[in-house]
Amino acid sequence: MADLELMRELAIENDTKILLLILDGVGGLPMTPDGATELEAADTPHLDALAARSICGMSTPVAPGVTPGSGPGHLSLFGYDPLEFEIGRGVLEALGIGFDLQSNDVAARGNFCTLDEQGIITDRRAGRIPTEVGARLCEKLRQVQLPGMETFVRPVKEYRFVLVLRGEGLYDGLTETDPQQTGVPPRPVEPLRPEAADTAKLFNQWLAEARKLLADEYPANGCNLRGLAKDPGLPQMPNIYKLRCGAIATYPMYRGVAKLAGMEVLPTGETIEDEVETLKQHWADYDFFFFHVKKTDSRGEDGDFEGKAKVIEHLDAVLPDILALDPDVVIITGDHSTPALWKAHSWHELPVLLWSNYIRMDSVTQFGERPCMAGGLGHIYHPDLLPLAMAHAGRLIKFGA
Amino acid sequence: MADLELMRELAIENDTKILLLILDGVGGLPMTPDGATELEAADTPHLDALAARSICGMSTPVAPGVTPGSGPGHLSLFGYDPLEFEIGRGVLEALGIGFDLQSNDVAARGNFCTLDEQGIITDRRAGRIPTEVGARLCEKLRQVQLPGMETFVRPVKEYRFVLVLRGEGLYDGLTETDPQQTGVPPRPVEPLRPEAADTAKLFNQWLAEARKLLADEYPANGCNLRGLAKDPGLPQMPNIYKLRCGAIATYPMYRGVAKLAGMEVLPTGETIEDEVETLKQHWADYDFFFFHVKKTDSRGEDGDFEGKAKVIEHLDAVLPDILALDPDVVIITGDHSTPALWKAHSWHELPVLLWSNYIRMDSVTQFGERPCMAGGLGHIYHPDLLPLAMAHAGRLIKFGA
Repeated sequence: MADLELMRELAIENDTKILLLILDGVGGLPMTPDGATELEAADTPHLDALAARSICGMSTPVAPGVTPGSGPGHLSLFGYDPLEFEIGRGVLEALGIGFDLQSNDVAARGNFCTLDEQGIITDRRAGRIPTEVGARLCEKLRQVQLPGMETFVRPVKEYRFVLVLRGEGLYDGLTETDPQQTGVPPRPVEPLRPEAADTAKLFNQWLAEARKLLADEYPANGCNLRGLAKDPGLPQMPNIYKLRCGAIATYPMYRGVAKLAGMEVLPTGETIEDEVETLKQHWADYDFFFFHVKKTDSRGEDGDFEGKAKVIEHLDAVLPDILALDPDVVIITGDHSTPALWKAHSWHELPVLLWSNYIRMDSVTQFGERPCMAGGLGHIYHPDLLPLAMAHAGRLIKFGA
Repeated sequence: MADLELMRELAIENDTKILLLILDGVGGLPMTPDGATELEAADTPHLDALAARSICGMSTPVAPGVTPGSGPGHLSLFGYDPLEFEIGRGVLEALGIGFDLQSNDVAARGNFCTLDEQGIITDRRAGRIPTEVGARLCEKLRQVQLPGMETFVRPVKEYRFVLVLRGEGLYDGLTETDPQQTGVPPRPVEPLRPEAADTAKLFNQWLAEARKLLADEYPANGCNLRGLAKDPGLPQMPNIYKLRCGAIATYPMYRGVAKLAGMEVLPTGETIEDEVETLKQHWADYDFFFFHVKKTDSRGEDGDFEGKAKVIEHLDAVLPDILALDPDVVIITGDHSTPALWKAHSWHELPVLLWSNYIRMDSVTQFGERPCMAGGLGHIYHPDLLPLAMAHAGRLIKFGA
């Protein structure tokens, strides 16, 4: 497994360019046992031609059998051991709505819930209230003031919101209030380490005030906080790898994770064509590009096999424009699998291709799960991809004499 | 990854023989994307026939993307985790010229450099002075005396030399004097731990005297010391594996590394035929043989594809003589790749074959990088090779009841 300190020791500058092209949730499953996966069913002449000139394989994002969330899936692509570095749920939720999180903020994911007269939770999601209702309730919760603190309450979707505290002396290491079951009351926030005691008090104060304001708002007459966390303070990619890193992604969460890793987030539009245009505009300015395609995952979550294949075909159609920029190293894979059959993230390995002028071509001629099983990279781990890219880009010196 | 303590616990004696045949830098790349590698292009009927009766695979010396120096490349072949055990540059340089390093010596690699009148480095390699000049300057530096210490100064090549201090109470954990840039003066040697303070003083005294002696020797009017280190005190192979270990290598560095690991170094000549003769002579005396072929690496560093293939063919021609000795286990691989296309050590995996009477034959019928990608060993790590050899030699007992 990759070792960030080793990378920091070996990395040197060079004038080569690395492109990490991520099709979110691209890994799939056949809808019938002997059928094709979404990627295999898609008509992808350019991906296949590139695979034929590449070395391919299968890659595990976290560990065998482990289904990654978006945070760990991307951390591992960026070379971090996702079991060592974690992005708290509150942070990820804040990034997901494009909130400009500061390094000392503590962010929590909030859930509106329903309480009975004894304060017992009867519905952990408050009957999945409409998003507009959630937004109105967030407006109301902005009245809660904490001494010496800024508070931010932002709606997400339905019963979900984000709460961020900003001020001096905030610590994470805090328990959640959601007991993960009905029939019991919400728990208080408790510190998991002594220095977080004051922060826990602040969150409990906020909760007490918030519940007063919500008292008449049936069914959303209560709320819980989950995943109270700070920016994890990741070692920064430009420092470790001596790469100027640019991120191109249409969704806030992926821009946010890239930013946590030390990448510069490039403004772009909503379509894959917009992203390609952004890549072209900034090609000279960065050494490493994280290029993220979201909708493969969305269609997979929808269970929409054809739709997911279409997104892959869409990317395939622009691939020649991307390759015309003449990168020195190209890696194409996903952050995790999202098979339409499973309608959710899954644990399955990802097909991966690695192209450079210094690879040993294998016999794979189609970019798909089953062809890549026979690829020359074998079965690898996501955190090893970036070190491999660095080596192929002539950006690592020899280890030891 | 292999665990030396586990091996020590499980290893038993037996009357079986293990041959580890290392073609230094054997891993290669095609000169054109769809071409053959050096090993694949070489005409190797005996290697191919052995591969057909073996189980094959691809092996990573250190970690994905990491290019090993000769030290880590060999430590991993000898079963050590190369990230845990390191051989300092000074030690490796001393071994490389066949210096008989004692366990308490501190060795440094010396570089002659050019200083201006203010003592600022203007050329870190002193204009790459000829080897004869370096040798004369080393002769001069032998005048430097340190109280209670023996000092050894040995020329290596051009501007490079080796300095060894021998005496009581020497410690390593010392900084280098080479600032790795011009425009600044050499740094002093500084201790990285308290007990190395006196050793640092001794090196600084030596440097002060040396620079006086060199003052008139433009362009080599100064010198730097790098990689100040002691024998790393590796756990010894005969103790761990209960093997009598013999090393056959034509170059001093590989003999030196084998000696550090506890092998007995067998005198041999300069050719592969000499090495085979040495193997025959000593066949009865050892259980494990490290047989090292150097020139695959040399030709790779030269960028000489054909020359490298010829060295491989040379080894292939003597393989029947080697196999006629009837070893119980044969492993053939390299310490790292040195593709002629890359003209240097590289990070690429090594093809490996393992033969014994207790393997499961796979479908590989040619010893080459692309065929071995489909081998039955899959993708493994160098430090796992020796435990596999031990097992196939009936030299490991069961773990646990």
